[in-house]
Amino acid sequence: MMRYLDKEAIENIAVGAAFLGTGGGGDPYIGKMMALSAIQEHGPVKLISPEEVNDNDFFMPSAMMGAPSVLIEKFPKGDEFVRVFEKLGRYLGVEEVAGTFPMEAGGVNSMIPIVVAAALNIPLVDCDGMGRAFPELQMTTFHLGGISAAPMAITDEKGNIGIMETIDNKWTERLARVQTVEMGASSLVSLYPSTGKQLKQHGIHHIMTFSEEIGQVIRSNEQDEATKFAQLLELTNGIELFQGKITDVIRRVQGGFNFGEATIEGLNQQADSQMKVCFQNENLIAEKDGVPMAMTPDLICMVDLETLMPVTTEALKYGKRVRVLALPCDEKWRTDKGIETVGPNYFGYDLEYVPLEEIAKQGGNARV
Amino acid sequence: MMRYLDKEAIENIAVGAAFLGTGGGGDPYIGKMMALSAIQEHGPVKLISPEEVNDNDFFMPSAMMGAPSVLIEKFPKGDEFVRVFEKLGRYLGVEEVAGTFPMEAGGVNSMIPIVVAAALNIPLVDCDGMGRAFPELQMTTFHLGGISAAPMAITDEKGNIGIMETIDNKWTERLARVQTVEMGASSLVSLYPSTGKQLKQHGIHHIMTFSEEIGQVIRSNEQDEATKFAQLLELTNGIELFQGKITDVIRRVQGGFNFGEATIEGLNQQADSQMKVCFQNENLIAEKDGVPMAMTPDLICMVDLETLMPVTTEALKYGKRVRVLALPCDEKWRTDKGIETVGPNYFGYDLEYVPLEEIAKQGGNARV
Repeated sequence: MMRYLDKEAIENIAVGAAFLGTGGGGDPYIGKMMALSAIQEHGPVKLISPEEVNDNDFFMPSAMMGAPSVLIEKFPKGDEFVRVFEKLGRYLGVEEVAGTFPMEAGGVNSMIPIVVAAALNIPLVDCDGMGRAFPELQMTTFHLGGISAAPMAITDEKGNIGIMETIDNKWTERLARVQTVEMGASSLVSLYPSTGKQLKQHGIHHIMTFSEEIGQVIRSNEQDEATKFAQLLELTNGIELFQGKITDVIRRVQGGFNFGEATIEGLNQQADSQMKVCFQNENLIAEKDGVPMAMTPDLICMVDLETLMPVTTEALKYGKRVRVLALPCDEKWRTDKGIETVGPNYFGYDLEYVPLEEIAKQGGNARV
Repeated sequence: MMRYLDKEAIENIAVGAAFLGTGGGGDPYIGKMMALSAIQEHGPVKLISPEEVNDNDFFMPSAMMGAPSVLIEKFPKGDEFVRVFEKLGRYLGVEEVAGTFPMEAGGVNSMIPIVVAAALNIPLVDCDGMGRAFPELQMTTFHLGGISAAPMAITDEKGNIGIMETIDNKWTERLARVQTVEMGASSLVSLYPSTGKQLKQHGIHHIMTFSEEIGQVIRSNEQDEATKFAQLLELTNGIELFQGKITDVIRRVQGGFNFGEATIEGLNQQADSQMKVCFQNENLIAEKDGVPMAMTPDLICMVDLETLMPVTTEALKYGKRVRVLALPCDEKWRTDKGIETVGPNYFGYDLEYVPLEEIAKQGGNARV
């Protein structure tokens, strides 16, 4: 199962991870450029399966935290990822870090661990802690499994660096968030230090490979658009919620997050309908004509109407023609603790979580 | 010069330090209770002179950070001071910490190092980094001497704890401040780890002894009020700016600071005059009838009209009768870097710093 990630794999992963990033997780172009430059400098990165790691080996992720829109202007210098990763390792007194892994799927956040793995010549484990992207640190399947996010390291592109130990994962989020805002609304972090056994138990397995497969479909030039789209739905177990043209985007950066709402006017058969997608870094709720069609933790993914390239929340703009897809989330998220952690109520929506498939069965009326 | 601090010494230091705290540095009653309880439990604390320490020995202060008004309601559990102190020591890999010292003079912040010294059975060095109190972390004579505030440790009463390494002392302040606010507007910190040589060069010497002498005068029952007051002025090289009754206090807690302004209507010979004292935790500017009479970094101290007990900014209230005194600051603050760091402009006042004595000579018109 062990293999090396080459340029083509990275291009595919960046696109597929941006798709799974459900609007967040960073811009895939920026992410891919960072990863490609890292493997050009240091050689290809070894991808290993979580099933292959030793239970007692020690792993740490590395990720970007904050408002994805900021990263576009505040491009990382590149040494931040390694600095924060090595800092946490030294702090923990770990003799050997056996590998790294992404915290979430996203155009940037799936790529940062590739940079770290390349620079430090360590393997990348094919799992993450979300199977998608979420805006807050405690929103991980590791958290659901009782793993502590702290000790956590945080740094910025200027060279400030910190370590936190906290009483719970919500406090890790709170204290890391205020520092991230002060650092300029984005930071680089390493957290949830984990053993191989914990990765096996609590990680979302094969997320890099899954991202790569999605990227392959989207980037393929061999099929016509309809075939590609059908393949994409089949591969991801997804459904299409809407096709339309973005007519309005409201956004604000607040507390280190990108909040907003996109209004999409229907095209083709849906010309009389309207979809509203609400986001906090990531897409959280998709309503069609006022009726919820999909909600967090299920994945709401927007892609370009024709190219099927993922559209991140910071790239939403008037006139863009998009398809809105929804994918069922990992079963770990559909537990009580999962819904409490990332369900609609947590984000302030007065909605009981109804799985995507249920809504579809009921003809799209989640309020029944 | 080495001696032990007993109950009487602590009572005097708490009062004298609150006086030098210029409105900030915490409530002396709370401070004294913490210190007395610590020496009762662990025995008396050894006070040593900075001249007595070895150049290569290693010292760390411990202090409270944040809005002093919060501490009154959010009383420390007591183990926070030791926790943050020991954390920084372990992080620095120091084999032996030779002693502790206060960062600033204040009713609480002069007492916390007594608690730490008692609990860990280490000496307390008779120096601080301000010779008064100031609201921000970079406002120390160590900073003026080029010493880094970081690595710095920060904790709260809940048990969250962090370490910071920063690119400069302003960033230490910024990142510690946002965490302090998130922790509930107060935190416990250890910073400016220093060698004995650095204490000698950059500390304000004999601040505990000076506080004690001031406290002795204020708490003495043997003299009448006028004699005591004359002694206080002579001891501190101070002048009396005003006597009056507080008629208005505007205050707000913002960004982890107590900001405000007290209006004092004159009594006796000054019945037709009004004084305004502006503060940010500490008193910064005293204006009489619109004319600045004293300004930061000089010390503006308020005491009860009759008892001469120091009045901290959180205790300002309508009807309280007070004397306003001003004391010249340490010469280190009157350098260019000192004025840049803590002069009126830094705090947003459109005033050029004029030393207290100059203003007095000019008959109180600092604008000339």
